[in-house]
Parts: sequence; C-alpha cells; structure tokens
Amino acid sequence: MTREEVVDFARKYDPQPFHLSDEAAAKTHFGRLAASGWHTCAMTMAVIVRHLLKDEQAGLGSPGVDELRWLKPVHPGDRLTVRGMVVDKTPSRSKPHIGTIRTRTIVSNQDGVDVMSFTSIVMMLRRPEGSA
Amino acid sequence: MTREEVVDFARKYDPQPFHLSDEAAAKTHFGRLAASGWHTCAMTMAVIVRHLLKDEQAGLGSPGVDELRWLKPVHPGDRLTVRGMVVDKTPSRSKPHIGTIRTRTIVSNQDGVDVMSFTSIVMMLRRPEGSA
Repeated sequence: MTREEVVDFARKYDPQPFHLSDEAAAKTHFGRLAASGWHTCAMTMAVIVRHLLKDEQAGLGSPGVDELRWLKPVHPGDRLTVRGMVVDKTPSRSKPHIGTIRTRTIVSNQDGVDVMSFTSIVMMLRRPEGSA
Repeated sequence: MTREEVVDFARKYDPQPFHLSDEAAAKTHFGRLAASGWHTCAMTMAVIVRHLLKDEQAGLGSPGVDELRWLKPVHPGDRLTVRGMVVDKTPSRSKPHIGTIRTRTIVSNQDGVDVMSFTSIVMMLRRPEGSA
C-alpha cells in the first residue's frame, strides 16, 4: 500500500478524514493515515484474480461475501499477504458443469498481523469428469 | 456507472474478463459488461460518506460487513440509488461517547431492481446527553 494509492482511493470512494491525512487520522483511534477497508478489499481482489487467471481457473462471479472483518488498520507502507482456502464446494444440482465454492480469505501485514478476513461464495466452472 | 469507470476499476482491481469487455461477458451469464461487485461497493461507499459528511455525522470507521450480496449485475449506464436504514444501535459499555450501529444498505438500479445489499457495523460518536 502506498500513500498515494491510499489517498487516491479515499478521495474517490471513501473520503472520511482518517483515510485522507495523517493529521486527521491522529485524532482518531487509527493514529495515522489508514486505508479504506474497501480499498483493502479491492487490493485483495486484485491479488486473487491475478492468481486465478495465472492458474486458468474459471471463476464465474460471486453472489456475495460473508463476515467481512476489518481487523486492524492498514497503513501506507504496509506489505500485505493474501491467504485463501476453500472451505467447501457444492456442485450445482441443475447445471453439472458449474459448482459453488466457499473460500476463506485472510489478509495479513508484514508483521504477521491479520488485518482483514472474509468468506466468499464463488461460482466456478467444474473440470470435465475424469480430467486431471 | 459509466463504461470507462467500470473498465478502469476492473483493470486495476478485478480484471476478470466479464468486467473488461462486452465480448467476454457475452459468453457468461452476465450477458454484457458488468461492474466488479467491489466497484459497486466502492461507489456505494462514496454515496454514503458524502451523505455522512454533509450531515456532519461522526463515523469512526467500521469493524466489518455481513451478508454482502451481489444480487444482480450492474451494467454501464445503470443509475444506482442507495437506501440505508439503521437496524440497531448499541452504546459502548466502556466509552460513553461512542456507540455502534448496524445499518442495512440496499442498492437498486433505475428499474427499481435491487442489485446489492449488505449489513454493516459502524462505530459512531454519540450526541452529548441532552443535545438535540
């Protein structure tokens, strides 16, 4: 996360004072400039999608997200790591080539502190029967 | 939502094919170019924050969001309306000047169709006792 990115995103989408300047953030529990939680979501999505595309995985979009939690502030200079795991998978009853997975995503910073987590529902193309 | 905004956001944060071009989206259930759900979240936040700032409401940040649902695709040219209601409020036990509200947000398009909904948890400054 760079300072410029944090402020650019906030100006456009989330212009609360603590997302715009250190001075305003110092008056709040954030202490110093903190990224919009929606910015952290967007950055996390960028990592996930680039990983999916690289692996030629076939995401078909998502009906939604549960238990999105902004656990700790994200500050300029933080280096975030995204971990994801599939927690369950359900083949579609009506469309055998499609399934739904639920994934748990955890984002942590350079100190190993979790800053965000969520569970998402993702529709995926299934591998043809018998393929590797 | 303009086409340029949809594609700009997707290039940066969610470069799945159906968020980048009508041609790719035509091969999916989206049918035509659809905005990233995270883009709809960010645009909704922009509306909410500008409303909060106008009314001098004192949001202190959010611990998270529940039941975020992307109900229908959002397409370029769509005009979105944001409705929000407070569903409950809880004063802080330890800090009497702070409270937590839960709000339900529903975003609908120009046809009155709900395209997104979520429940968010927001920390707020409370009015001093006895003030209007």
